[in-house]
Amino acid sequence: MTLSRLDINSDRLNANIERIAKIGKQPSGSICRLAFTPEALQARYLIQQWMTELDMHVSTDAAGNLIGKYDGIYHHAPALATGSHIDTVPSGGRYDGALGVLAGLEVVRSLRQNDLRLNHPLEVIVFTDEESTMIGSQAIAGTVLYDEIERYHLPSGKSIQEALEGLGGEWDHLATARRDRTNLAAFVELHVEQGIILERTQHEIGIVQGVVGMRRRKIIITGQANHAGTTPMEMRQDALIAAAKLVLAVQTIALAMPTQPVATVGFLSVLPNAVNIIPGTVELTVDMRDLSKEVLDGMVEQLEAAVAAIAVETDTQITVAPLLCVEPTLAAGLVQDAIAAVCHQLGLSHCHLPSRAGHDSLEVGRITDMGMIFVPSQAGLSHSEAEYTSPEHCAQGATVLLHTLLALDKLYPI
Amino acid sequence: MTLSRLDINSDRLNANIERIAKIGKQPSGSICRLAFTPEALQARYLIQQWMTELDMHVSTDAAGNLIGKYDGIYHHAPALATGSHIDTVPSGGRYDGALGVLAGLEVVRSLRQNDLRLNHPLEVIVFTDEESTMIGSQAIAGTVLYDEIERYHLPSGKSIQEALEGLGGEWDHLATARRDRTNLAAFVELHVEQGIILERTQHEIGIVQGVVGMRRRKIIITGQANHAGTTPMEMRQDALIAAAKLVLAVQTIALAMPTQPVATVGFLSVLPNAVNIIPGTVELTVDMRDLSKEVLDGMVEQLEAAVAAIAVETDTQITVAPLLCVEPTLAAGLVQDAIAAVCHQLGLSHCHLPSRAGHDSLEVGRITDMGMIFVPSQAGLSHSEAEYTSPEHCAQGATVLLHTLLALDKLYPI
Repeated sequence: MTLSRLDINSDRLNANIERIAKIGKQPSGSICRLAFTPEALQARYLIQQWMTELDMHVSTDAAGNLIGKYDGIYHHAPALATGSHIDTVPSGGRYDGALGVLAGLEVVRSLRQNDLRLNHPLEVIVFTDEESTMIGSQAIAGTVLYDEIERYHLPSGKSIQEALEGLGGEWDHLATARRDRTNLAAFVELHVEQGIILERTQHEIGIVQGVVGMRRRKIIITGQANHAGTTPMEMRQDALIAAAKLVLAVQTIALAMPTQPVATVGFLSVLPNAVNIIPGTVELTVDMRDLSKEVLDGMVEQLEAAVAAIAVETDTQITVAPLLCVEPTLAAGLVQDAIAAVCHQLGLSHCHLPSRAGHDSLEVGRITDMGMIFVPSQAGLSHSEAEYTSPEHCAQGATVLLHTLLALDKLYPI
Repeated sequence: MTLSRLDINSDRLNANIERIAKIGKQPSGSICRLAFTPEALQARYLIQQWMTELDMHVSTDAAGNLIGKYDGIYHHAPALATGSHIDTVPSGGRYDGALGVLAGLEVVRSLRQNDLRLNHPLEVIVFTDEESTMIGSQAIAGTVLYDEIERYHLPSGKSIQEALEGLGGEWDHLATARRDRTNLAAFVELHVEQGIILERTQHEIGIVQGVVGMRRRKIIITGQANHAGTTPMEMRQDALIAAAKLVLAVQTIALAMPTQPVATVGFLSVLPNAVNIIPGTVELTVDMRDLSKEVLDGMVEQLEAAVAAIAVETDTQITVAPLLCVEPTLAAGLVQDAIAAVCHQLGLSHCHLPSRAGHDSLEVGRITDMGMIFVPSQAGLSHSEAEYTSPEHCAQGATVLLHTLLALDKLYPI
């Protein structure tokens, strides 16, 4: 069999997706497999078994990342890697993370069934806790915030040190998990889009241009609570009027940028919040995302200018505090081109788009070449029991992953 | 002594304000004297004692209104009346309501000390539950909503029937409390402004042009909750964007009206209200107040037009439901003129202004001539322990009340 005729087994892949989806399944149909919980451990245990059955070398690094290595012809060449995560949000879906892990195993299964090996070793990585701390991919990228351990707060209340120990990891040795180009040539992640662009534009495959960076701000507007009857309009310091102007300014700032960033006020809380009292205080958050660091910084600058103008205009005081700052990671051009060529060969419709949700690739892409393959999410829904990607789309994604890895095996030096 | 030299006793008035303020005083300094509670009963009991000491005929009507009548020279002439309420909000101040009742008693005390009687009987009325149901003044005006008894829900959970019985009133006989011009020639209420206009414009006395009517609406905006990262700006149905436009439209509608109405979005609640989720639902309230029914109806019409336009513009669904509809009451020109003439004679600075808070006068003014005298509220604050009106301003208000009643006694036929 020639490499170009090689294919994955759709039924087997989708049966494994079903199998993993049973672990942590809730009455509603959603999946609860929070990182470090017995459910997440059970899924890891099953995947570890499958890796062993595939003659992969299984190891766990200091961050608890589960790594299965399928030897290449050249044992000491830097690895090609794929993978994703099997932890979920509290009401997660069946595809977010799991698809990338199981498609990686399916690629290995397909190679092994045909007695094939790449030149490079091929790793399938199950990253630790993508949905909350991202400690797994951060350790590999060397971006762990050791000085801000409070950021690694877990919903269970367990310390991150204790949680890592439960997976065979160790906080104090996280630096040993770090990788670089000398041992990791490239990383390709298959994931469901979790957005509506592929469905709306009717494309089978999305080629990710990069994972967006984020700037989050918490804004507190202080006006003066007062009687909604007895305070004339021109004597008011209405914090909600200021907030309304700011909500619209955030939208305007995003729409004016040529790179199509997104910006959202998702949280807004009013005090005292009574029908007959002028709002005295409003707290809100702003979440801004884009592939370009320059655009992100420009948006922050424009937000601060808007805040200053609105404070004067509404006679309120407005404070802006940073909540989160994540730099974007671009996908490697070489990997994007390889994915596009594969789609072309396979006759799959495809388009380029940014990933506006966070992924393990965001971190891994900081230390080596990275690429992501998206498949459509029905109605763009994710993080819920309604998350759905058809078996055909899952299989198409895994097929593109297989042939992209085959192509990269030729493109990267051994 | 001639009538024009007659004066009230400032020390006595302010000592009585202090005396009543002790009843229901909270550790914070605020007053909690909710209608129908033991604290409100204790204050009524004390006032009843004072009325008796002043040789007033004391009675309680079916709505629990406590009425003290100081006989006039002409026993069967329609009464002139003054008064207000002694119930408070949960964290009330010392002047809201109490000043009007105690100034009314001080007027009688002053007349009696000088062995004077008006031609008309003079009534001091302590209205039942001004702060919540307004059942007392509504019964006198005949505007009780018998078919909507749920509107008379009390915070204690007690039924309104039971609550009225506790004061010697009776729900089934409320119609007997109704008054008209044949037995009530005019009603004048002294009250603290609860706003900042008198202080800002440095006037000692406010002559109320009327009590504003209200239109309240509850608005529910339904968009689509979605991922704040993966949903492009142009594919959003953001309920908070629609809400922000509506908050600003409400302000614009009020500012464009020539009568200086007020309009407020005081309550606004966002769902799911998370930093990384586009708001799917926003609920908010709109409170609009003005002296003119036509302006109020015009504002409602403009609000509904704005809602329709914003729903289209933001691809959301918006429903508008009525919460409250209260028609305004204008103060009688004759009473306003009498107050202005008194201020002029006494050399007190004064201006005309609407009352944008509700008062018992709103209801009483529907069935007979009504007027209100405002004295300044420090910093415009009310319904809190910070509510303050200086002893001088209280005394000036009571003096204007006395001389206005003397003037009206000559103006209204016996």
